[in-house]
Amino acid sequence: MPGLLQRPGGPITVSTLKEAEQFAAIGLRDILYAVGIEPGKLTRVAALRRQGVDLCVILDSLEQAQAVAAAARATNDRIPALIELDPDGHRAGVAPRDPRLVQIGAALISGGAELRGVMTHSGGSYSCRGGDQLSAAAERERSAAVGSAEMLRAAGMPCPVVSVGSTPAALSARDLTGVTEVRAGVFVFFDLVMAGIGVCAIDDIAISVLASVIGHQRQRGQILVDAGWTALSRDRGTADQPVDQGYGLVCDQAGRVLTDCILTAVNQEHGIISLRPGSGAPLPELPVGARVRILPNHACATATQHGEYAVVGADPERVAAVWRRFSGW
Amino acid sequence: MPGLLQRPGGPITVSTLKEAEQFAAIGLRDILYAVGIEPGKLTRVAALRRQGVDLCVILDSLEQAQAVAAAARATNDRIPALIELDPDGHRAGVAPRDPRLVQIGAALISGGAELRGVMTHSGGSYSCRGGDQLSAAAERERSAAVGSAEMLRAAGMPCPVVSVGSTPAALSARDLTGVTEVRAGVFVFFDLVMAGIGVCAIDDIAISVLASVIGHQRQRGQILVDAGWTALSRDRGTADQPVDQGYGLVCDQAGRVLTDCILTAVNQEHGIISLRPGSGAPLPELPVGARVRILPNHACATATQHGEYAVVGADPERVAAVWRRFSGW
Repeated sequence: MPGLLQRPGGPITVSTLKEAEQFAAIGLRDILYAVGIEPGKLTRVAALRRQGVDLCVILDSLEQAQAVAAAARATNDRIPALIELDPDGHRAGVAPRDPRLVQIGAALISGGAELRGVMTHSGGSYSCRGGDQLSAAAERERSAAVGSAEMLRAAGMPCPVVSVGSTPAALSARDLTGVTEVRAGVFVFFDLVMAGIGVCAIDDIAISVLASVIGHQRQRGQILVDAGWTALSRDRGTADQPVDQGYGLVCDQAGRVLTDCILTAVNQEHGIISLRPGSGAPLPELPVGARVRILPNHACATATQHGEYAVVGADPERVAAVWRRFSGW
Repeated sequence: MPGLLQRPGGPITVSTLKEAEQFAAIGLRDILYAVGIEPGKLTRVAALRRQGVDLCVILDSLEQAQAVAAAARATNDRIPALIELDPDGHRAGVAPRDPRLVQIGAALISGGAELRGVMTHSGGSYSCRGGDQLSAAAERERSAAVGSAEMLRAAGMPCPVVSVGSTPAALSARDLTGVTEVRAGVFVFFDLVMAGIGVCAIDDIAISVLASVIGHQRQRGQILVDAGWTALSRDRGTADQPVDQGYGLVCDQAGRVLTDCILTAVNQEHGIISLRPGSGAPLPELPVGARVRILPNHACATATQHGEYAVVGADPERVAAVWRRFSGW
């Protein structure tokens, strides 16, 4: 993407080593691989680092720290690592200020690797509603990261990087004192989940799936389109939100929302458009062959289903550019 | 795949035109595109037919029949079509024996296209439980198809193809009188949904995702692996079955089920293994780096997430062959 190419060194955060390899191939040099390192992957990490990529890994256990240190000694390269923290009980990570932080840090340093800092991903922020909850999640994350960094520094260890993440928290933080890096991803496109959380408007969503009407079941109030879960994904991230958007919110080809029209079901290559339950809106007249744009619940999950992005500007019928995607590991 | 290559003519059923194009490129000639035709796609249909591919489309409306007939006249090619039936209120299709069948058939024939027959996909069979319900679904489908074919023939129209489908019904039909073709797909691999319906055993499932342990949250009884929804999909097809398998059932690398271990949550690149709620089994000892195989809810949805199949035989550590996949439309 243009923004990246203007800053060929990065920084960038990736969630697979294939992403690291692809971005390294176009010149990015400052890369964080933000999924807990599995020792079997250290061969690929070392190969990228030998090419001059400053690839940093993350970990949350003594076993991983020992494996990284062993790889560092074997390759004569102080592989850098951030210790992952778990500020909200959501997924991976050491509890903030847990004494294990110091043990893990010491294993890295004494073993020949580099303790570069700490990182969090506040996945719990996805279940927040409203500015106050989001700001509280952002502060919980900041406090966990900064407090843990201070604990490591008090033990005499360096901790230059204090990295926090997640789009909802990143956009709601009122104070970032002590934080050196904020990682956010889905803000690039936004999506219905982010709109439901309240960090963007529907109009801010910059990704959609273009589909065509292939039929009707008028007696059931259904319009069928040629986009199912292969095109949208099965993500139901809005199911627990105040407004359930089904498998996606339906717009006309120009991107104007068709009131209360959502994708209520998806099969492999079929999507079923119906009115939101309880709606008083009329089902729009969409003949066979009509085009609709479907806004996705989760931009990441939907984008993963596609081999490329068709970039459109003011004219929704003209593809201004095609950006290739890659998938896999 | 070997079986296909031994029968280079087909027949084969596809759900996208890209599939039709790819299978045509390796020599298949008898292809049914089994998603309701959208008029804008008839250019690609005609191009494949000009190459000698007997590509047949499906439709369930007069508008589509008129569009197919117009394309047939424009290309001087009697494009064949099956009329789709809706035996169970599940998705697309004309109600069985609906008088519209005759109108649609007449529009095809008088317009210059070919009425080749009728077809159904008994998607409703996926919610059946047990042999009697499945056999009843299969018979409902057969009766809908055969009765509709008889109605067209009684109106003086040819109806050589009577095509039924869906793996659960195909494997449970007690009588196929009048049916000329049975289409089934997921039986190639089977999956947890099919096991839950009762048409296969867990041991019959021939597809899994190989993942590695990347961490533990012992106080929460969780093991983290490097396979999330990008690897498994978000399919939750067992959620409404008597045994909910989460996002997948966990086995050791040799494919032996780890009792009650399921993937209870998935993020983009993280999977969380926990014991099934209420289980008395112990959480297995799986150190960082240990390999597990995860059986998927829905083989189609999981396979779509991958660029290739790694084929393994008796030795689960040796990849005997790699089969490339393709995706997209």
